[in-house]
Amino acid sequence: MRGAMLYGPYDVRYEERPDPTIIEPTDAIIRLSATCVCGSDLWPYRGIESVTQPTPMGHEYVGIVEEVGDAVRNIKPGQFVVGSFFASDNTCPICQAGYQSRCVHKQPIGAIGTQAQFARIPFADGTLVATPEIPPDNLIHSLLAASDVLGTGWFADATAAVGPGKTAAVVGDGAVGLLGMLAAKQMGAERIIAMSRNEARQQLAREFGATDIVTERGDEGAAKIKDMTDGLGAHSVIEAVGTQESMLQAIRSTRPGGHVGYVGVSHGVELPGEELFFAEIHLFGGPAPVRRFLPELIDLIWDRKINPGKVFDLELPLEQVADGYRAMDERRAIKALLWP
Amino acid sequence: MRGAMLYGPYDVRYEERPDPTIIEPTDAIIRLSATCVCGSDLWPYRGIESVTQPTPMGHEYVGIVEEVGDAVRNIKPGQFVVGSFFASDNTCPICQAGYQSRCVHKQPIGAIGTQAQFARIPFADGTLVATPEIPPDNLIHSLLAASDVLGTGWFADATAAVGPGKTAAVVGDGAVGLLGMLAAKQMGAERIIAMSRNEARQQLAREFGATDIVTERGDEGAAKIKDMTDGLGAHSVIEAVGTQESMLQAIRSTRPGGHVGYVGVSHGVELPGEELFFAEIHLFGGPAPVRRFLPELIDLIWDRKINPGKVFDLELPLEQVADGYRAMDERRAIKALLWP
Repeated sequence: MRGAMLYGPYDVRYEERPDPTIIEPTDAIIRLSATCVCGSDLWPYRGIESVTQPTPMGHEYVGIVEEVGDAVRNIKPGQFVVGSFFASDNTCPICQAGYQSRCVHKQPIGAIGTQAQFARIPFADGTLVATPEIPPDNLIHSLLAASDVLGTGWFADATAAVGPGKTAAVVGDGAVGLLGMLAAKQMGAERIIAMSRNEARQQLAREFGATDIVTERGDEGAAKIKDMTDGLGAHSVIEAVGTQESMLQAIRSTRPGGHVGYVGVSHGVELPGEELFFAEIHLFGGPAPVRRFLPELIDLIWDRKINPGKVFDLELPLEQVADGYRAMDERRAIKALLWP
Repeated sequence: MRGAMLYGPYDVRYEERPDPTIIEPTDAIIRLSATCVCGSDLWPYRGIESVTQPTPMGHEYVGIVEEVGDAVRNIKPGQFVVGSFFASDNTCPICQAGYQSRCVHKQPIGAIGTQAQFARIPFADGTLVATPEIPPDNLIHSLLAASDVLGTGWFADATAAVGPGKTAAVVGDGAVGLLGMLAAKQMGAERIIAMSRNEARQQLAREFGATDIVTERGDEGAAKIKDMTDGLGAHSVIEAVGTQESMLQAIRSTRPGGHVGYVGVSHGVELPGEELFFAEIHLFGGPAPVRRFLPELIDLIWDRKINPGKVFDLELPLEQVADGYRAMDERRAIKALLWP
């Protein structure tokens, strides 16, 4: 088969790779129907996370099950499935508590690489969720979004205790931040403040439910949020960037007793303990346990209640994967969908 | 009147101070029935927090109301009252959400200084809770504990989502940590792990409900907690120290998806963002909104269901306040009660 490999900074190649095979009896092999480039793929692409050898890329995926191992009970060849970026058994105590991305047997799908024609998915019964039937083409984008960015935005909102009557603010206008706004609307937030300077993204933010746009950043952005909330700060703040500035912006935009849900992969962040102590805010985040939310998200998409697939503003054949990275790196695209 | 003043490191003096008077119509003046020395008083006492001028000390208190301002409606002269270390109006949106220690009008009682014969308490109606009647002498210790250390331990447990079937671990064997164990038992924790090397404190820990004692500290302590919990970590960890080591010990002792409730006043702490992200734990803490819990805690004490007053293992006349600081600084006493 063919798939994407990262050789070093800004060097993604589409090349021949070995066909995946069943290794463990709990594995499944899927034929990718669609895959995409994630904001977090840009960290190694830009060399901020170093890559020491050619590395498969991609961890978002929807596809048709080709083959399953002997121990797979529920997932069957021919099904259309959605999975998350960590394979999880969904039976360990951590999974059962709803934190499948920290499953005691977790395996990162990124190490397998789903920007490819086929992929081996470990713990198929735990990891994959089948759709009611083979979806029509116009649902593929949204189902693919559920695989990571929608599930991650959803987790951020759940974590930030978004709910009716509350003000939610979102730091970050990438796909996760934008879908955090969609999630906030679904969860009944009264006011949804998008922090964005990009007109196209502001437009999508409003479509997804943002009621206000703040263009200021850092402490100015936080001050603006306080101004807009009687000096108190937002109840719920979603952090979807992962830098020191964005984390402090999120923390400083939150009212005492409020919640920050942070899902931007943390890079070079050091949180000042004293400030955090006296801020008195709930802080929770990490790799989103997307698997927990998949059944609900698939239902919402299947019933056309949400349309998260709109974050894909660029579509390319998989063989042009390098163009997808370039467009996202240069912020010409919010998110690039790749057709194998 | 007379009261305690801190002149500099290790220099507490009991001396003449002006009698407090009603300044705002929402004030009350109380005659202290008992007061005490807090672990957090030791930070300035040891010079870790600098003191630039003679400073009144003390923020824990129970007493009899002497006088109230014209706007005080519910608190009345002659009542026995318990209050928290922040005066709060109990009506602002932050108070109404249960975070009275971050009230928009909060005033630190520490700046007033309750290691004294009398004290002015701002926002008397919001801050003070009256007992059903004048308590018998043998309830004074426990009611005084409710004013801070019990309320703070309680908050830490509530924050750490302690509950039936869960394992709670407590970092710190001072009064707050010990009462965090008492709170964990009240909240139904199945297993309560005290992290302590001090025999007298281990003894009290067991009386308060600790089921296990861990003497290791830092990463060894965290590894021990993981060993005891099938490699997962505790569900709920209370941090009641405030140092870098204790915070990391708490974070590293917690299972993914678990909760750290931190109430040790943070000093010199820098939290590594990446570790926190991948630890995937709920982190919440700060100055405890003790006022939220006072009605419930007073009821439990009044009905003799809990006996938190046991943390006072030294009692002195207020004029010997300096001896109380010395005994706590040298860890000869867990907590010193002072009789005015």
